Amino acid sequence: MTTLDDKVATLSAAARRARGVLLRSDAAARTAAIHAVAQSVERRQAVILAANERDLEAAHTSGLSDALVDRLALGADRLEGVIAAARTIAEQSDPVGGVRESRQLANGLHLQRVSVPIGAIVIIYESRPNVTVDAAALCLRSGNVCVLRGGKEAKHTNAALAAAVREGVEAAGLPADAVQLVDSPDRALVPKLLARDDAFDLVIPRGGEGLIRRVVEVSRIPVVKHDKGVCSLYVHADADLSMARALVLNAKVQRPGVCNAIENLLVDRAVAAAVLPELGAALSAAGVTLWADEAAMALLPNARPARASEWSTEYLALELAVTVVDDLEDAIAFTNRWGSGHSDGIVTADPVAAETYLQAVDSAVVYHNASTRFTDGGQFGLGAEVGISTNRLHARGPMGVDELTTYKWVVRGAGQIRG
Amino acid sequence: MTTLDDKVATLSAAARRARGVLLRSDAAARTAAIHAVAQSVERRQAVILAANERDLEAAHTSGLSDALVDRLALGADRLEGVIAAARTIAEQSDPVGGVRESRQLANGLHLQRVSVPIGAIVIIYESRPNVTVDAAALCLRSGNVCVLRGGKEAKHTNAALAAAVREGVEAAGLPADAVQLVDSPDRALVPKLLARDDAFDLVIPRGGEGLIRRVVEVSRIPVVKHDKGVCSLYVHADADLSMARALVLNAKVQRPGVCNAIENLLVDRAVAAAVLPELGAALSAAGVTLWADEAAMALLPNARPARASEWSTEYLALELAVTVVDDLEDAIAFTNRWGSGHSDGIVTADPVAAETYLQAVDSAVVYHNASTRFTDGGQFGLGAEVGISTNRLHARGPMGVDELTTYKWVVRGAGQIRG
Repeated sequence: MTTLDDKVATLSAAARRARGVLLRSDAAARTAAIHAVAQSVERRQAVILAANERDLEAAHTSGLSDALVDRLALGADRLEGVIAAARTIAEQSDPVGGVRESRQLANGLHLQRVSVPIGAIVIIYESRPNVTVDAAALCLRSGNVCVLRGGKEAKHTNAALAAAVREGVEAAGLPADAVQLVDSPDRALVPKLLARDDAFDLVIPRGGEGLIRRVVEVSRIPVVKHDKGVCSLYVHADADLSMARALVLNAKVQRPGVCNAIENLLVDRAVAAAVLPELGAALSAAGVTLWADEAAMALLPNARPARASEWSTEYLALELAVTVVDDLEDAIAFTNRWGSGHSDGIVTADPVAAETYLQAVDSAVVYHNASTRFTDGGQFGLGAEVGISTNRLHARGPMGVDELTTYKWVVRGAGQIRG
Repeated sequence: MTTLDDKVATLSAAARRARGVLLRSDAAARTAAIHAVAQSVERRQAVILAANERDLEAAHTSGLSDALVDRLALGADRLEGVIAAARTIAEQSDPVGGVRESRQLANGLHLQRVSVPIGAIVIIYESRPNVTVDAAALCLRSGNVCVLRGGKEAKHTNAALAAAVREGVEAAGLPADAVQLVDSPDRALVPKLLARDDAFDLVIPRGGEGLIRRVVEVSRIPVVKHDKGVCSLYVHADADLSMARALVLNAKVQRPGVCNAIENLLVDRAVAAAVLPELGAALSAAGVTLWADEAAMALLPNARPARASEWSTEYLALELAVTVVDDLEDAIAFTNRWGSGHSDGIVTADPVAAETYLQAVDSAVVYHNASTRFTDGGQFGLGAEVGISTNRLHARGPMGVDELTTYKWVVRGAGQIRG
């Protein structure tokens, strides 16, 4: 056995033991544990922020991009947000034991489909250290144990946060190993961990395309991907043009470094001349670089010509690809072909066009007359989210506490046998 | 490109084209298609039964086990059952477009979580040819396209059934490629197909452990396993003993070749002497071979000593492993350790013991005072099933038409932007 094999064996065995305890814990114990986590993080604020400063210095030295530094930075405000989010999760109604469906059969059997924890979850993420606490709190709320593998650029922050989380869990009487952080920087550990479908029930990778692809390729554990967001807005022929302008600006500019910001703008040929010059000027004024196809170029003096790769690029920055489409069907086909199935919207005053778009666009979240920036567990009223799933199965879009449960069938009888 | 690569490319491209049509089809078109499938199978009954005879002859020649021959055999009665099941599915309410949840946010956004087709599904199965029609009908009902890969022992039956199904689908105006059968016997095709996560959204393997393991290891497509059923009944200290006897006999003997029959019998030490001699005699009289641990051996004159492997063996035959357990907690620990998480039950008159068991046993279906043989989509009132999932995610237990959908979030606004 190598040291890595030892580490994986230890993580797996500890997760199994803690899993058994969590599966039979009650809601009150889980609530107390999350409150204790929040308290412990609050008490250790100074240590955590100092650890984050160390990571930020290293990031500046190594020349990390602005978008990644924005994700890495915690700061007192964001840390208070993290603590508040944990407290919100502690007060959220507990999903375990919830009855999703009841059936009484003719033979007298009584069936219930009841929410239960998924079990043990591996979460692999890059940058954003708030995930360390959010994920732990969400897993605790839903009765799951987790193994967290953060990015090396956030290693000091994550270590400080995880220590606080484990202290809180243990203080509340649940096993500290309900939340484990992988501290080895060795990338060879991950494939070994992902072979342990005997110990883990789900892996959630959040990060760049390369990470997601590696996880999907090697994992024997079911994967719920949190893949890239190539999101779009489509300005339909019957759009309210001032609404369209406000939505496009918000969806691109308000926080460009996140997955629910738009990367593609589709403008209907019928309104392109009325929309693009003014909207292009507003976007340029906001610092957005525009990549335009031929028809859009003619209306956007500041734009650069789009390359073939533009339509599937996640910029995570002040850049936007712009195309002129022929009509609604062309917009739907473009979105299904080039988007990543994350969040896409139509701006239109025509309800029939809206409903056609909402049905035909095959994305996790589809919008009519709203910014794609709302794709978020908090905004949706689901509480904090463990991420935004781009899977088609189990969970799509914001993945909150309900999406961290599965179900079992409970059947109560009086001696029924099958004839 | 090899011939196999060509075949996989053709299957994938055809599935993609058909998927686009099915995603936008309406419920009436899908209902008509399933009725047309039933009619087409009915019209071709003689051809299908003749094809099944050819497969059965080959099975006898090659010495297939009785359990497998039972699964392979269609016969006029079972074929009529298949046709009737398809008609039931045609009349079932359509799951696509169903609103699972609605939320009105404070900012006026209106959210719905709406059921949508999963997309394109690969189904890999052994023996039972009724799956060919059941799976096609369930996929059509839920707006999915499918690629079916049956066992080579049922190749003539499956080819005849699939031809009938495709004829029906096409007659109703949907693309025949909504249902494709892989006709190549080459096992090397499967890994190539399972690498195509760009074309397929889900793979459902149904069959032996070896098949399931191979699929899980190579697939980049999410897998919902239909793995073995090592099911059990536990006769608690407070069981009604005549009820216990009837349930155990039913769960073992009524149809031993299926996954929801029990393979393990757990008897509480407190009632072992009162239960086992008479129950053992009844099981022996029904032709059941008993494999007993030491304590059970003392009470079962006809039993053979259990080997270490007994407790996780799926016999699919008239064999039963018997163990004496100390108490409720011992029974729960035994079931979670050795069972396959499929279907397990307790027989008891004590409601507290029952609730403890139902919560703590971590299986897809848990029973109180009923036979495990009820784990079945038809019995549960879900209509025909595509199988019984032993996954923890997406679907657990009987997987019917609702479990063949996923959801999207539909958000309707009036120009909301995120602040």
